[in-house]
Amino acid sequence: MQQTKIMLEESEIPTHWYNVVADMPNPPTAPLGRDGKPVGPDALTAIFPMALIEQEVSAQRWIEIPAEVREALTTYRPSPLVRAHRLEAALGTPAKIYFKNESVSPAGSHKVNTAIPQAYYNKMAGIKRLATETGAGQWGSSIALAGQMFGIDVRVFMVRVSYDQKPFRRSMMQTWGANVFASPSMETNTGRAALAADPNNQGSLGLAISEAVEEAASRADTNYALGSVLNHVLLHQTIIGLEAKKQFAKVGDYPDMVFAPCGGGSNFGGVAFPFLADKAAGKNVRLVAVEPTSCPTLTKGVYAYDYGDTAGFTPIMKMYTLGHDFMPPGIHAGGLRYHGDSPLVSQLFHEKLIEAVAVPQLATFEAGVLFAKSEGIIPAPESNHAIRACIDEALRCKATGEKKTLFFNLSGHGHFDMASYDRYFSGKLEDFNYPEEAIKASLAHLPKVG
Amino acid sequence: MQQTKIMLEESEIPTHWYNVVADMPNPPTAPLGRDGKPVGPDALTAIFPMALIEQEVSAQRWIEIPAEVREALTTYRPSPLVRAHRLEAALGTPAKIYFKNESVSPAGSHKVNTAIPQAYYNKMAGIKRLATETGAGQWGSSIALAGQMFGIDVRVFMVRVSYDQKPFRRSMMQTWGANVFASPSMETNTGRAALAADPNNQGSLGLAISEAVEEAASRADTNYALGSVLNHVLLHQTIIGLEAKKQFAKVGDYPDMVFAPCGGGSNFGGVAFPFLADKAAGKNVRLVAVEPTSCPTLTKGVYAYDYGDTAGFTPIMKMYTLGHDFMPPGIHAGGLRYHGDSPLVSQLFHEKLIEAVAVPQLATFEAGVLFAKSEGIIPAPESNHAIRACIDEALRCKATGEKKTLFFNLSGHGHFDMASYDRYFSGKLEDFNYPEEAIKASLAHLPKVG
Repeated sequence: MQQTKIMLEESEIPTHWYNVVADMPNPPTAPLGRDGKPVGPDALTAIFPMALIEQEVSAQRWIEIPAEVREALTTYRPSPLVRAHRLEAALGTPAKIYFKNESVSPAGSHKVNTAIPQAYYNKMAGIKRLATETGAGQWGSSIALAGQMFGIDVRVFMVRVSYDQKPFRRSMMQTWGANVFASPSMETNTGRAALAADPNNQGSLGLAISEAVEEAASRADTNYALGSVLNHVLLHQTIIGLEAKKQFAKVGDYPDMVFAPCGGGSNFGGVAFPFLADKAAGKNVRLVAVEPTSCPTLTKGVYAYDYGDTAGFTPIMKMYTLGHDFMPPGIHAGGLRYHGDSPLVSQLFHEKLIEAVAVPQLATFEAGVLFAKSEGIIPAPESNHAIRACIDEALRCKATGEKKTLFFNLSGHGHFDMASYDRYFSGKLEDFNYPEEAIKASLAHLPKVG
Repeated sequence: MQQTKIMLEESEIPTHWYNVVADMPNPPTAPLGRDGKPVGPDALTAIFPMALIEQEVSAQRWIEIPAEVREALTTYRPSPLVRAHRLEAALGTPAKIYFKNESVSPAGSHKVNTAIPQAYYNKMAGIKRLATETGAGQWGSSIALAGQMFGIDVRVFMVRVSYDQKPFRRSMMQTWGANVFASPSMETNTGRAALAADPNNQGSLGLAISEAVEEAASRADTNYALGSVLNHVLLHQTIIGLEAKKQFAKVGDYPDMVFAPCGGGSNFGGVAFPFLADKAAGKNVRLVAVEPTSCPTLTKGVYAYDYGDTAGFTPIMKMYTLGHDFMPPGIHAGGLRYHGDSPLVSQLFHEKLIEAVAVPQLATFEAGVLFAKSEGIIPAPESNHAIRACIDEALRCKATGEKKTLFFNLSGHGHFDMASYDRYFSGKLEDFNYPEEAIKASLAHLPKVG
């Protein structure tokens, strides 16, 4: 019987996260304040615990994973590395296809990998409450679960339009004990002001961030938690790639190419950075970030300082951006609609150590359905981007006869995205033209540095 | 680090299913036709392949699992046996609690364990299409997935009210390539007649069964597939208990009590029968079927011959029943609303080899939420019944100080049942009184034998 899933023992869960900063040819850029000066760690203590701030600025190659975090991760880790025999057969490709199945987490995506350590370090710092925002709900679910595990109250500001349209993600967070508020809410000054101006305000991710940060900054017992973009988030996600490398070693294989969806960058960084360490050591491996053509940050954006959020509250960070007020089309991969990208991913792309490709929406769903029919698991729309790019490469191998080893990250399942599949099946899903004019307009609003 | 998940290698997937008939003190009762005479295998060939009919009547203890079936099962098997450390801590019980996590299948429940062999044997018999019915969609999803794996077209007749109210289960089946029809449909004589009489007919499981059986009986290329009750279905599900026994052996433990939800009986039979083999050999293990107080088949029904379906189309089978036209209250564990029970489970209960307990709806959701908060996974409402009974025993152990080993089957996740959790959180879920009058009325309609 051929082997499908390559498993690890719980005792093989990595003991250290990998910090890519140690292997970058140039030091990472620092976030800057409104005065154009680097934001020091001290400025962040109002909303983050010191342990996470230290990770954010660390240049140490290996950072130890606390035993309590590893133990909490055993809830679903190690995740399987799966050889996609049936997908290979369906494509008729000589390429070997593997995927890491991160959909096995109780919240259904890789986001839990950072939610658990974030909850842990906040708990250790004496924090009683975490405030955060969520759009579609993947991140909110993950931090709700992790908060419950460490006895921290979680308060999620959920964009009102999602709160109303996606009640099941909300019920999921409530099952894990989180308080979920439709944003704008009556819980914060920001929310109350927005509702006073417009009682029917449908909310936005920018507004929800403002509410969460206001709570975190104004209460000593409350901190803020972010699910992507920042260095410490990508650090925690490297557990994916580290496990995958151990699993490839068990079957004596190694990927020629690694694919992951790229929105804020934590999914891609998590799976790709540990392989980048090998690349830095001379290994020939291509790392491909896959983004939607409708929000083509790496492939069509500029490398410049910009705000992390839409409203311009955050420090500015050097990253590939489409402009902080760029509003991408309403594609169904909500996690890939970010205007910018992780500064680490951006710098590595700028230095040509990683690649990027953009794929259109309909083609991603087509790939996701083929994957589901072959491998069973129904993927999240975000994951469909990686699947699309991987299938395209497998088909190129079919044409050339190359026996490449391809590897992608199945970042999550689509159980809460079936409405999107429904729209795809009924022909209501559309491709969006590359939003050239909108990007040009928003790029004109980039902040001036200094 | 304490171990959470006890895993098996794919090569340790059992090579044979266990047939409990071999260890029963008395031979199993046979289904009877309208003439009161046993229904022979020949009568079933119009809708089932011979391999499944042979399994249905076999008395052989071990039945080999074909290599192709074992390989297809590697998509998600072996499933983890999980030590519920966090739930134990939350309860403060000295008992050890384990659960088998069957929610890892792509369709989200144990139903795939029988869908795969059923699709396989039909494929081997040259069948091109499978027709089946589904209510809430767990079974329909599983057979859609399995049909896709073996290249068989699957046609699912889905009760109209579910078709309209649960569009996501429908999209899931469509993702795997199944044709899903709201029942009554225009596809069959039965459906057309029902619609002619009432164009707004909302359908029923009985009607959907009739449509599926009509298709299967009237077309040589089409067979019928059933997701519970029958002997061969329970046989396929024994893979759960067989794996669990290997996993307990790995950690040197063995359950004092085994709990599983019991509707049609395949969940309970699948996990409990392999332990019953040990009980027959003198081992002290208690096997507890858990049912809802609103549909208390084993605990309040009678042991008599009755139809398997509401409409009275099927042969009559000796089983615990509340009467084939008993309509249970609209509880949210749709899989446990069956008026009868598997003849094998019924006979073993009648012979006092297994036990049964009934639990009320609100208490099951309370247990499910505590489980989700402790162990992460949000359970299906059906699974919440086993969790409730297991927790009740763990609390008894807390009172007495007993260090029992408790084991339950987490038959599925609740990702498609969040509307039910929502109703629970908002206080809209209710307990139903024991429907004594309705049961009395339906028991008056039991068929006369002969």
